[in-house]
Amino acid sequence: MNDAGAPLVSVRWRDRGLDGIPELLDQTVLPQTVVYREMPDLATLRQAIIDLVVRGAPAIGIAAAYGLARHCLVAAARLPEASPGEALEPAVAAAIASLGDARPTAVNLRWALTHLRTCFDHHVGLLTARESAARLLLEAKRIHAEDAQCCRQIARHGAALLPRTAGILTICNTGALATGGIGTALGCIRQAHQDGATGTIFACETRPLLQGARLTVFECQRLGLPVALCTDGMAGCLMAQGRVGAVIAGADRIAANGDTANKIGTYQLAVLARHHGLPCYIAAPYSTFDRSLPDGGAITLEERPADEVRGYRGVPAAPADCPVVNPAFDVTPASLITALITERGVIRPPTPAAIAELLADDHPQIPAV
Amino acid sequence: MNDAGAPLVSVRWRDRGLDGIPELLDQTVLPQTVVYREMPDLATLRQAIIDLVVRGAPAIGIAAAYGLARHCLVAAARLPEASPGEALEPAVAAAIASLGDARPTAVNLRWALTHLRTCFDHHVGLLTARESAARLLLEAKRIHAEDAQCCRQIARHGAALLPRTAGILTICNTGALATGGIGTALGCIRQAHQDGATGTIFACETRPLLQGARLTVFECQRLGLPVALCTDGMAGCLMAQGRVGAVIAGADRIAANGDTANKIGTYQLAVLARHHGLPCYIAAPYSTFDRSLPDGGAITLEERPADEVRGYRGVPAAPADCPVVNPAFDVTPASLITALITERGVIRPPTPAAIAELLADDHPQIPAV
Repeated sequence: MNDAGAPLVSVRWRDRGLDGIPELLDQTVLPQTVVYREMPDLATLRQAIIDLVVRGAPAIGIAAAYGLARHCLVAAARLPEASPGEALEPAVAAAIASLGDARPTAVNLRWALTHLRTCFDHHVGLLTARESAARLLLEAKRIHAEDAQCCRQIARHGAALLPRTAGILTICNTGALATGGIGTALGCIRQAHQDGATGTIFACETRPLLQGARLTVFECQRLGLPVALCTDGMAGCLMAQGRVGAVIAGADRIAANGDTANKIGTYQLAVLARHHGLPCYIAAPYSTFDRSLPDGGAITLEERPADEVRGYRGVPAAPADCPVVNPAFDVTPASLITALITERGVIRPPTPAAIAELLADDHPQIPAV
Repeated sequence: MNDAGAPLVSVRWRDRGLDGIPELLDQTVLPQTVVYREMPDLATLRQAIIDLVVRGAPAIGIAAAYGLARHCLVAAARLPEASPGEALEPAVAAAIASLGDARPTAVNLRWALTHLRTCFDHHVGLLTARESAARLLLEAKRIHAEDAQCCRQIARHGAALLPRTAGILTICNTGALATGGIGTALGCIRQAHQDGATGTIFACETRPLLQGARLTVFECQRLGLPVALCTDGMAGCLMAQGRVGAVIAGADRIAANGDTANKIGTYQLAVLARHHGLPCYIAAPYSTFDRSLPDGGAITLEERPADEVRGYRGVPAAPADCPVVNPAFDVTPASLITALITERGVIRPPTPAAIAELLADDHPQIPAV
């Protein structure tokens, strides 16, 4: 269906009688086409995640959570009504096996699935299969709502750090399209402008898939924010011209020491910011931290298909057979990050101790299963 | 005509009885289509330069020289046979007026036209109009041949500086397609590989017009060189991974102090090289220096149409009406340039005194009118 006028929601759950179905805003055809696609089964959702129909670390996590819930609801409906929760075990395992490795870098995907698995394990002995599936759906909805809340808190923390009149440069898309709420880095920018900031938002187009050009510019324009599109090669020039006051980006995975994996190109923006004496912020929710990894060297970086770089939306640029490097992400060392902005507060500068303290499991905002 | 198998020549003169015509390899449709376009008059050539049918500072200069010669040959043919050289003055003036500002940043364009104007003024009293026009054509051919020779010399000087096994990263296209010979920066890389270098040539795709993807990769593949295409946002990541040993780029204009205007994105490559302790070289002929400008702040930087950034080859990415910044060039300060590589030798480090010395007008390699 065409939803050109609707608010931008990357993932939504459509209730349908006894079950329901997740729908994804197809981000591969934005902004020229605004269309939601139903995700009836695991294979469809897995492929949609691989194909970037949904992208953005938090949004992928939410989509996966709904996908697992949908799969369990369907499975439970096929079981006798009084089947115990344990009967859903194969469905839960199948969902995690199918979705867990659809994309390797964003940790939120596995975080969400693990969270639902823990929830399932916790309740399975006390509920029927249908009740368990219903419980998983509620948990997926809670993850979604919680992400929206995280976004608001991140935005509040981040907006206070951003310049009032100078330009703000960002990369990729970190707004409503990437999350379950108003976004991470773009949420901070949006909040800053709501609070009176006036500087131009420079959106790096973010080759090869142009999430900046296609999604961030689109979101900013719908919100009435003063955005200007630039190529990824213009960032340094804009900084040298004094047109940028801060760099802010999102994250796909943050190691225990603050090293941050994010969209390819983020690392060099951090280097450029440092060279020009500008702050470089990373905005991300709790679920993006992977404290099992001591540093960024341990983060798996996805290498994507060469044709993404050889051309653009099916239009060839380079020779069809040319060798290509296409890492989808790079790692920005904590030493180049001025501050990490989370829903729990600002970690400035990012040190292992400061990260461990803010993210301690006994922190009051940890989601309870 | 289709010349898929022919050697790549950006500009060529086709002799045709008493006159002749310049032809440009249409670089807007490379590498998918290899076709030369005739340039019968000034208006066609001017538009071709604006549209980047021919691009690359030295190649633009050569094209303009042939265009002026062609215009004068045609004008002379319409004059009585014994007309004095002075009768060509309006034709020379018209060519300079038409072509001189077709693109503002590359200085070679005006350098070539000024050179032909000087040649004309020098000979005009002694030759007929037809002889003067023939003399101008010979001078254009000499500029072309001289550029080829410059390229060979630049390549020899530059190859000695480049790493033997580490990767070499470059931007835009600086090869045969950009010059009248084997190229400037890409000529150095080509020579280094001929001399035994083995490292990967990382070609930044060079948005928005993708000269790296379309032209440099194409040239390297035809030459059998080990090229790999990357987006402009990957340069820093590749450096951090230790895959790059040097950065080398061309130039569109070099000020008296060594500040260098080149394709947008060059500046940030120089910053990134500095951050990673890598050398950053600029390779360019004498004709690229503009000693009338004390520093890079005085260089006019062309702002090109917004639609170049909004999409690619007519395929939209960003919303059709979004604001865009699209400087075609940026300025790299001399302080970030390890060495300037010219046909006369290497200026290392680039200082006003070293530049003035190497480029002094009494230098033996100065072209004589």
